[in-house]
Amino acid sequence: MTKVASRKGHMTLPVEVGQEEVVLDLYQRWQADALRDSDGTSMPDSLAKQDSDIYSVMCLVRGDQAYANQHPEYLHRKYLMSFPVTAMEESASISPLSGYSKDKYELDDDSDPKQWWEVRDRTTNQVIDTQQWDFEPDTKSVVIRNTTPYHEYTVTFMARQVWDSVSMYNALTNDWDGPRIKSLDPYHPECRAHLIRHFQKWLDEHPHTTVVRFTTFAFLFVIDTGEKNQDIYRDWTGYGETVSPRALQDFEQRFGYKLSPEDFVDAGYYNGTYKVPSQRYRDWMTFVQEFVVDFAGELVSMAHKAGKKTAMFQGDHWIGTEPFLESYQKIGLDINIGAVEDGVALRRLTDSCGKQTREARFYPYFFPDVFREGNDPVVESMSNWTKIRRAMLQKPLDRIGYGGYLSLANKFPHFIDHVADISQEFGDYLNHTQRSESQKLPGKVAVLSAWGKARSWLQNQARDQRFYVPPRPDVMEFVGNNLLECLSGLPFDVEFISFEDIQENGISDDIKVIINTGDANSAWSGGECWDKPDVLVALRQFVANGGGLLGVSDPSAWQKNGRYFQLGDIFGLEKETALTMGRVAMPVSADKSHYLSQFVCGNEDFGNLSYVYPQADDLSVIAAEGQHLALTAREYGEGRAVYLSNLPFTMNNARLLQHILVWLGSNETCQHAWLSENPYVDVAYYPETKAATAVNFSDEPQTIRVTDLQGQEVTLTLAPYEWQWVS
Amino acid sequence: MTKVASRKGHMTLPVEVGQEEVVLDLYQRWQADALRDSDGTSMPDSLAKQDSDIYSVMCLVRGDQAYANQHPEYLHRKYLMSFPVTAMEESASISPLSGYSKDKYELDDDSDPKQWWEVRDRTTNQVIDTQQWDFEPDTKSVVIRNTTPYHEYTVTFMARQVWDSVSMYNALTNDWDGPRIKSLDPYHPECRAHLIRHFQKWLDEHPHTTVVRFTTFAFLFVIDTGEKNQDIYRDWTGYGETVSPRALQDFEQRFGYKLSPEDFVDAGYYNGTYKVPSQRYRDWMTFVQEFVVDFAGELVSMAHKAGKKTAMFQGDHWIGTEPFLESYQKIGLDINIGAVEDGVALRRLTDSCGKQTREARFYPYFFPDVFREGNDPVVESMSNWTKIRRAMLQKPLDRIGYGGYLSLANKFPHFIDHVADISQEFGDYLNHTQRSESQKLPGKVAVLSAWGKARSWLQNQARDQRFYVPPRPDVMEFVGNNLLECLSGLPFDVEFISFEDIQENGISDDIKVIINTGDANSAWSGGECWDKPDVLVALRQFVANGGGLLGVSDPSAWQKNGRYFQLGDIFGLEKETALTMGRVAMPVSADKSHYLSQFVCGNEDFGNLSYVYPQADDLSVIAAEGQHLALTAREYGEGRAVYLSNLPFTMNNARLLQHILVWLGSNETCQHAWLSENPYVDVAYYPETKAATAVNFSDEPQTIRVTDLQGQEVTLTLAPYEWQWVS
Repeated sequence: MTKVASRKGHMTLPVEVGQEEVVLDLYQRWQADALRDSDGTSMPDSLAKQDSDIYSVMCLVRGDQAYANQHPEYLHRKYLMSFPVTAMEESASISPLSGYSKDKYELDDDSDPKQWWEVRDRTTNQVIDTQQWDFEPDTKSVVIRNTTPYHEYTVTFMARQVWDSVSMYNALTNDWDGPRIKSLDPYHPECRAHLIRHFQKWLDEHPHTTVVRFTTFAFLFVIDTGEKNQDIYRDWTGYGETVSPRALQDFEQRFGYKLSPEDFVDAGYYNGTYKVPSQRYRDWMTFVQEFVVDFAGELVSMAHKAGKKTAMFQGDHWIGTEPFLESYQKIGLDINIGAVEDGVALRRLTDSCGKQTREARFYPYFFPDVFREGNDPVVESMSNWTKIRRAMLQKPLDRIGYGGYLSLANKFPHFIDHVADISQEFGDYLNHTQRSESQKLPGKVAVLSAWGKARSWLQNQARDQRFYVPPRPDVMEFVGNNLLECLSGLPFDVEFISFEDIQENGISDDIKVIINTGDANSAWSGGECWDKPDVLVALRQFVANGGGLLGVSDPSAWQKNGRYFQLGDIFGLEKETALTMGRVAMPVSADKSHYLSQFVCGNEDFGNLSYVYPQADDLSVIAAEGQHLALTAREYGEGRAVYLSNLPFTMNNARLLQHILVWLGSNETCQHAWLSENPYVDVAYYPETKAATAVNFSDEPQTIRVTDLQGQEVTLTLAPYEWQWVS
Repeated sequence: MTKVASRKGHMTLPVEVGQEEVVLDLYQRWQADALRDSDGTSMPDSLAKQDSDIYSVMCLVRGDQAYANQHPEYLHRKYLMSFPVTAMEESASISPLSGYSKDKYELDDDSDPKQWWEVRDRTTNQVIDTQQWDFEPDTKSVVIRNTTPYHEYTVTFMARQVWDSVSMYNALTNDWDGPRIKSLDPYHPECRAHLIRHFQKWLDEHPHTTVVRFTTFAFLFVIDTGEKNQDIYRDWTGYGETVSPRALQDFEQRFGYKLSPEDFVDAGYYNGTYKVPSQRYRDWMTFVQEFVVDFAGELVSMAHKAGKKTAMFQGDHWIGTEPFLESYQKIGLDINIGAVEDGVALRRLTDSCGKQTREARFYPYFFPDVFREGNDPVVESMSNWTKIRRAMLQKPLDRIGYGGYLSLANKFPHFIDHVADISQEFGDYLNHTQRSESQKLPGKVAVLSAWGKARSWLQNQARDQRFYVPPRPDVMEFVGNNLLECLSGLPFDVEFISFEDIQENGISDDIKVIINTGDANSAWSGGECWDKPDVLVALRQFVANGGGLLGVSDPSAWQKNGRYFQLGDIFGLEKETALTMGRVAMPVSADKSHYLSQFVCGNEDFGNLSYVYPQADDLSVIAAEGQHLALTAREYGEGRAVYLSNLPFTMNNARLLQHILVWLGSNETCQHAWLSENPYVDVAYYPETKAATAVNFSDEPQTIRVTDLQGQEVTLTLAPYEWQWVS
């Protein structure tokens, strides 16, 4: 294990040519110990020799544009599905690229359409025989014969990407006017060999660099771009842009079966991460991961040989190198850098296995979209920081950092002071915690989804998100159900499990509460994974034997055998999906005597109407919106179950979640040291350093009473936003 | 064809012993020409000899309680599914009646459980072999052996109903304290023969009766009752209470296959009318209809032989005798009486085929729930009447009437005057229209559902209805989507068609616009009926060739082949069901230049958020709620399509619907005589009598400009609620 934070500071400072004096000033004030260049900036020579770590950005697949221009056959490729065309007569012509960006995509003329493309009748979902259609190179269109009038047809085709998505974004959003960058696919051995040579040269030419900061090892996240160069589809963790004929052939060798174009375009759904993944798609992911880990491992090992440490930035493309994958550790990286805007993003960084140093790259990035006249960058930063601090209490974070143009940030002295405060608070945190972990309540909390551990602490967006247009498309603003953000700052051991885990290994004894949260059909709720009797049996047994089950939004939703909520028997309720309209609605009345009722004061936010109704006499309704259930509790055997309609992130909701998890874990009668009941103040205790701490989320003073380890009551008063340490 | 309204009046007056003087007074004031008894009242002898039609209630299956008490084997039976029981070990015991009313149900000990019952593992949906379970008569429970722990089990059993649902309702809701009435099942030949004899005796004993007013020929609507005697399931048009071993055996003979208990309990959904019916269930309906028509026909023919006319009240049980069925005409009834609370209920009465006289039985019924101190019955009556009047303009209504205790109504002189006004307005309507039909706009409007004609003008409740607890359980108060009510008062020819109609006969040339309205999964939207390429082709062709398509709520909703809305290609949109979360939301902007935009002023009610987003560049957004589409329009080939998120009944919405249907029918450039554009005033023109009329829905004066047949503008000013005739 390598810890970079051997010097006094703990912050990575972005530098820029011409800003040398500012850098030297901020280096002290922000308690920096490392310098970095950013995308669009470079390291001044005078600073490169500074006694600090020097992080240098390395995005190898974009690193040699001359080579990329010479070798279109090595550019990234992907399967796209043409927009459906309705046959109005007995033949139809489809221009595959119609509706897609001509600046970004070309038809891949290296792969034979008859071998690699697929034409489908989408009204019957039949594959059209290759004898029945032809690609006409002159018009770049596919002509289909003997079509059925009023059926819809699509062509799934291989497209070559001639403009990298990030380069395109920076050109169109940030008005960068450099050349259009292309990305190379290192899966091709010749291309890989070239990139390796290129990297060795780079290492040789960067003697002052102490840390190679990789962004992107091999493949891009998925952004599909429409013909007005607008984004039409995004999947930050999708594996769509990893395809090539060569890789597909090797996959067939490795897995013994052949993937079809349909496996990638997925009827136009493109295997979105929010969808329950098919086994074939997961096999493809495994295949890609094996390659990327191998390639990344080679690069890391070269850097190590050159005497440098390695970091990976997880904010951009990280396909195949997600740190929660077991294979990640084979790469040998020293530092994980996460783009962190909230508690969930922080836990995504801090909760993965491995001995890597964890560095949080904070928002806002020093870019003109935020650092412009009339805007106060502190507002966004403070909103992020209050969420991140709560989550920092739960798992150790090693370093912090920023990125972008320092010259821009320096125009906002108020922001410079604010970051100095953040860094000071972070330094105190390091001192008091010594990178140890805070005390947790008894019993693990497991979040059950179709992805399990592989997608730990990945945001499970609710449907509402699709109807919210944020001011900045690249920055996530969450609306609707957001249980994970509530959970990220609570004192529970959390792990993420999948349905497969339950089927293969059962439910581990140390798990006390299982959470299933998400919209119906999604990977988060589980969709077809609920169509498995052994899973239902395992969960019923788990609860009957004393476990706790928390369902949020559409838990266990799958229409089958007379139930929409497959575990509706445990929850004691059902959702109306227009199949039970004859069941007579009874006025619901709140069970004021229930333990959880005391924590519901009326200002909770349970989000949308649930369309969920009681289906058991012994159901305790804690909160409802009219007749729509919002929060219910029920006992089942020795265990307990709670249903929540929605849980948007508010501090009230977060504290309510804490009480729910305590009740579900049957921990409500025990006294817990250093456990906050104030919605706005989070409290933690560090057994290794015997330090306790309280942090005020709100812009008002707060008083809080907690008990210490001896059961003595301690009263703490905190100023607005104050972070206080108690020894 | 027989018309009863040969005398001067047009109203059926309920009478009551002791109220003779009131009756004679109201007979004139309310323009009555017929007298009736009601459930709970009887005809005074002095009135029975009056020169008026005398309606006498006949509910034959409840008519001989002594016989019913002697013959439990002839009582109504039904299949119920026990509430699921989770096996906690390797055996389980289920008391089938647990959770059900013991006052209403008994286990049917005439039918052998091993032959007629069914035990299922509801976690795997497997039928448990009869060798693996036994019914224990002592404990009245089923013991299942070799169960799988944590699987759920149910017993589907045959229950005998020992208390008629209506009798139970009156006892529990209206505090009637008479004996518990039982209903007989005339399917049994011995029982049928007895009832026929009983009816003949009744005919002989009622010489003054001129009209036999049948309520219920054979079977009851479905009300399942819980163990606290509360209603737990209701289906006013369900066929659940028509079952007996004898009928099931005959069904097997007739249709060549055997129905299982599961065909009736349907995993606990009980084939609710709002569900897409299976072919097996529809076969059973046909079987029941054949029997009921035969039995009812025999009774009607006996009444005719006795010199009496016959009426059927369609407000209670009318299973098997729904007037929209072709077989209905075989019964030979003279008068259809409908319980009418709104425009939809009126159209259900007036729009069926056949030459029967149509009589509307208005609400409120003269019962203590409404006619109590402190309540003003005029409020409900006026609310109903304003809706009914609109619908009356579209199809002729012959008679009106009331029911209940005249003594109660007579305590409200204000109400007595109000009914006199209603009857006067109705008399004017008869005079001016001479039972002719008003002029309609060109082109038929067809409402497409899984039921089609069989369930014409049946309310398609939205999911919101399940979460609304009305003050009176027996009176429908509609919440949410209610397109039919809007449509009921508009000048369009309307018919109801099914998917089967389209598959078998295509789309008739006289249909100009097709409406599909309803929640996903429901019979109204169509559910699995959308999984038929030939239906999609027919509808695409219909629109491409110039037809109009109106989708409301979840039109064509069925998850398949990359679409949730199967006709999303026509509408140009898609619904987010958590499968397309990666598609990037674009800010929607209204197309102010669209023809329909002029009719949207902002006070429309589009109900719930739609979760529907644009999926075509050429979509015109007319209204949206944030990014959720509320009203859109699009051209497709020569035709047009409109999507509406929801259409609760308001007069604004009704008039908007008119404009939409005009646009969809490509009628917007023609001038239409006597067509209202005022939201609150409906206008109609009667070519046969050359009368025009305008009726003010609102409690404010209204002015309206319309053009007459010559294209001359006519201005009409109406007082609040005024109904005006123009000759």
